[in-house]
Amino acid sequence: MSVTAAKGFEASGVACGIKPSGAPDLALITTSDRCAVSAAGVFTQNVACAAPVQISRRHLEDGRAAAVVLSSGNANAATGEQGRQDALRMCQLAAEGLGCDTDDVLVCSTGLIGIPMPMAALEEGVPKAAIAVAGGSEAGDAAARGIMTTDTVSKQAVATASLSDGTTITVGGMAKGAAMLAPSMATMLAVLTTDASIESDVLGEALVDAVDGTFNALVVDACTSTNDTVLVLANGAAGNALIEDSGADLDAVASAITSVCDQLAGAMASDAEGATKLVTLTVTGAPSNDDARKAARKVASSQLVQCSLYGCDPYWGRIISELGTSGVKFDPEQVTISYNGMTPCVNGIAASHDEAALAKEMAGRDIEITCDLHAGEGTATMRFTDLTHAYIDENTGTS
Amino acid sequence: MSVTAAKGFEASGVACGIKPSGAPDLALITTSDRCAVSAAGVFTQNVACAAPVQISRRHLEDGRAAAVVLSSGNANAATGEQGRQDALRMCQLAAEGLGCDTDDVLVCSTGLIGIPMPMAALEEGVPKAAIAVAGGSEAGDAAARGIMTTDTVSKQAVATASLSDGTTITVGGMAKGAAMLAPSMATMLAVLTTDASIESDVLGEALVDAVDGTFNALVVDACTSTNDTVLVLANGAAGNALIEDSGADLDAVASAITSVCDQLAGAMASDAEGATKLVTLTVTGAPSNDDARKAARKVASSQLVQCSLYGCDPYWGRIISELGTSGVKFDPEQVTISYNGMTPCVNGIAASHDEAALAKEMAGRDIEITCDLHAGEGTATMRFTDLTHAYIDENTGTS
Repeated sequence: MSVTAAKGFEASGVACGIKPSGAPDLALITTSDRCAVSAAGVFTQNVACAAPVQISRRHLEDGRAAAVVLSSGNANAATGEQGRQDALRMCQLAAEGLGCDTDDVLVCSTGLIGIPMPMAALEEGVPKAAIAVAGGSEAGDAAARGIMTTDTVSKQAVATASLSDGTTITVGGMAKGAAMLAPSMATMLAVLTTDASIESDVLGEALVDAVDGTFNALVVDACTSTNDTVLVLANGAAGNALIEDSGADLDAVASAITSVCDQLAGAMASDAEGATKLVTLTVTGAPSNDDARKAARKVASSQLVQCSLYGCDPYWGRIISELGTSGVKFDPEQVTISYNGMTPCVNGIAASHDEAALAKEMAGRDIEITCDLHAGEGTATMRFTDLTHAYIDENTGTS
Repeated sequence: MSVTAAKGFEASGVACGIKPSGAPDLALITTSDRCAVSAAGVFTQNVACAAPVQISRRHLEDGRAAAVVLSSGNANAATGEQGRQDALRMCQLAAEGLGCDTDDVLVCSTGLIGIPMPMAALEEGVPKAAIAVAGGSEAGDAAARGIMTTDTVSKQAVATASLSDGTTITVGGMAKGAAMLAPSMATMLAVLTTDASIESDVLGEALVDAVDGTFNALVVDACTSTNDTVLVLANGAAGNALIEDSGADLDAVASAITSVCDQLAGAMASDAEGATKLVTLTVTGAPSNDDARKAARKVASSQLVQCSLYGCDPYWGRIISELGTSGVKFDPEQVTISYNGMTPCVNGIAASHDEAALAKEMAGRDIEITCDLHAGEGTATMRFTDLTHAYIDENTGTS
């Protein structure tokens, strides 16, 4: 169970007809008592953000929420004023069905851009989903399935933490991420719930930190979709002393939140259908951690690097070239590059190595690349995949 | 004829054995009298720039050059100190063969990164190329063929201009550009020659301007290869009054230089083998021309946009999403997007249009996309191609 793992949360997932296939396409998550609780969110930085993002941001201004309504199959993005009205109507329908305030409902959508929401389906579906709301793992599963698009498996995670007053708190979460971990890939949505008692401000800070090291280390490009959203609701049902400030208890909750985000990000990586490689790239020895992140992002988002990996080719020359255009200060003739612990490049030039053994490593699915810039102490790790025929087919609809 | 079109230039192209295929892989360009003349260059901004770039930059410090030696098949990049020695040795061999100073020889290489230069081949080949040097179109053709890598045709261009004193000057040029116009694609090399009499400082400024609007509008990503180089040599053989400053004569020469760069860039675009679309993207109504360029670059470098085009899909939603992450200030709900004059998006949302007619347009090879941001007067145009199976095959070696 996922979003229903923490005490006092219920969920549902149904098929309302947004997807022509008849697959589940609508999910609800709510506090069991329908009361608004501490809540926080991290949203896409895209200027062209979707209507649900605009509405959820507004509804989160008071740091409180009672429910989240999520749909898949249509992103409700690039839909203008009608899109905002439709997103608000989804909140209203959820509020009516659940018995809470419209302002306390958050909304997420994922799917195609530029197509008006099929509101007739939602008008029927949201009340149906409200009736279906229940606690327990089955309801959590149903909600996780309701937000899938090109995902091949639903993504759920749970973590717990012990606080200083002896309370154990639980964090649960669900996510959907396009099956391919590619630049500016379709929407990433995640909802976390926790029974910790915690102020929304510090909850929000913990969420930002967690997202930075997990979901954001999956995004290969600076691109962010129109709809990316990560939400967390904290209802205090665990009964711990309210966490209002930094300290060991906040650290414990933050760590559980990060764990759930990391599990969900890992699940997205494992669901990288179409990709033949799952690459973990670590840049070390950068002037700063930010520089390391910048360099890693540049390498990971390179079509040529991705193509080399698809061809099982440890072509470190392309990595050096990408590092060289990353804007990070380093001496190319100090760089060492390793693939799965084997090192074909030392001091920026070719180094002798066991080519047969390296070729064998490159034929596998999991590739760990390390680039040491020898220019400082900064490090960063980023996950990415190779660029394949299947990626193109999935994104042209020609498959 | 190309680099031999202007008076007083000679060239040659030979096969020296860098390429296992035995194809031409070495070219020389020189002034007929072997004397150093005004020269300027534009080089890759890549920190990890190749050895020939480092040597050519040094040899251009005095704004003068007598010859250019170019090789294809090996980039002499990520080759460290040995690479610099090898690049310098290429200059020395050319100087010895031609009878000029080593410091007056510029050097360019293109091909694989990280592999030491096969200097035995160059030791034999450069003297052979020096002996072969001649004027006329056949020699110019041979030089242009000597720098091809994945190009399917050689790329040459000529333009003329009339100056205020009645002189006609000629600008000729040759280039090689990887057959696919893709982000961070392999090296782009170009050499221009002109018989105009012009100071190297203003010649350099004219070249920078010309490159910016032509070759740089082909580069889909901020990525630049380790070896990108554009050079121009001006020998004054046309006999015009020396151009030292801005004015109508400089404008005339600059315009001829730009024309040659544009023809060469166009030839690269037309040689976009593997691509099924040749897209011309114009962003208008941006706050500034720089903003328009930034927005156009973001859209053009998007794998998802490129995939849509491969699938003949006018999926303008992905374009809006990329515009939204470009860092340019605009209101997504003011954006209009057209494909070949048909407009499926007005004010940021779907607009009714003749879908059958648009689908017919999208099936063609040449696609003109216009995005009006309605946020100012800035405009920019960028050429790019779609992302195809053939691109992947070419860059994995699996084809």
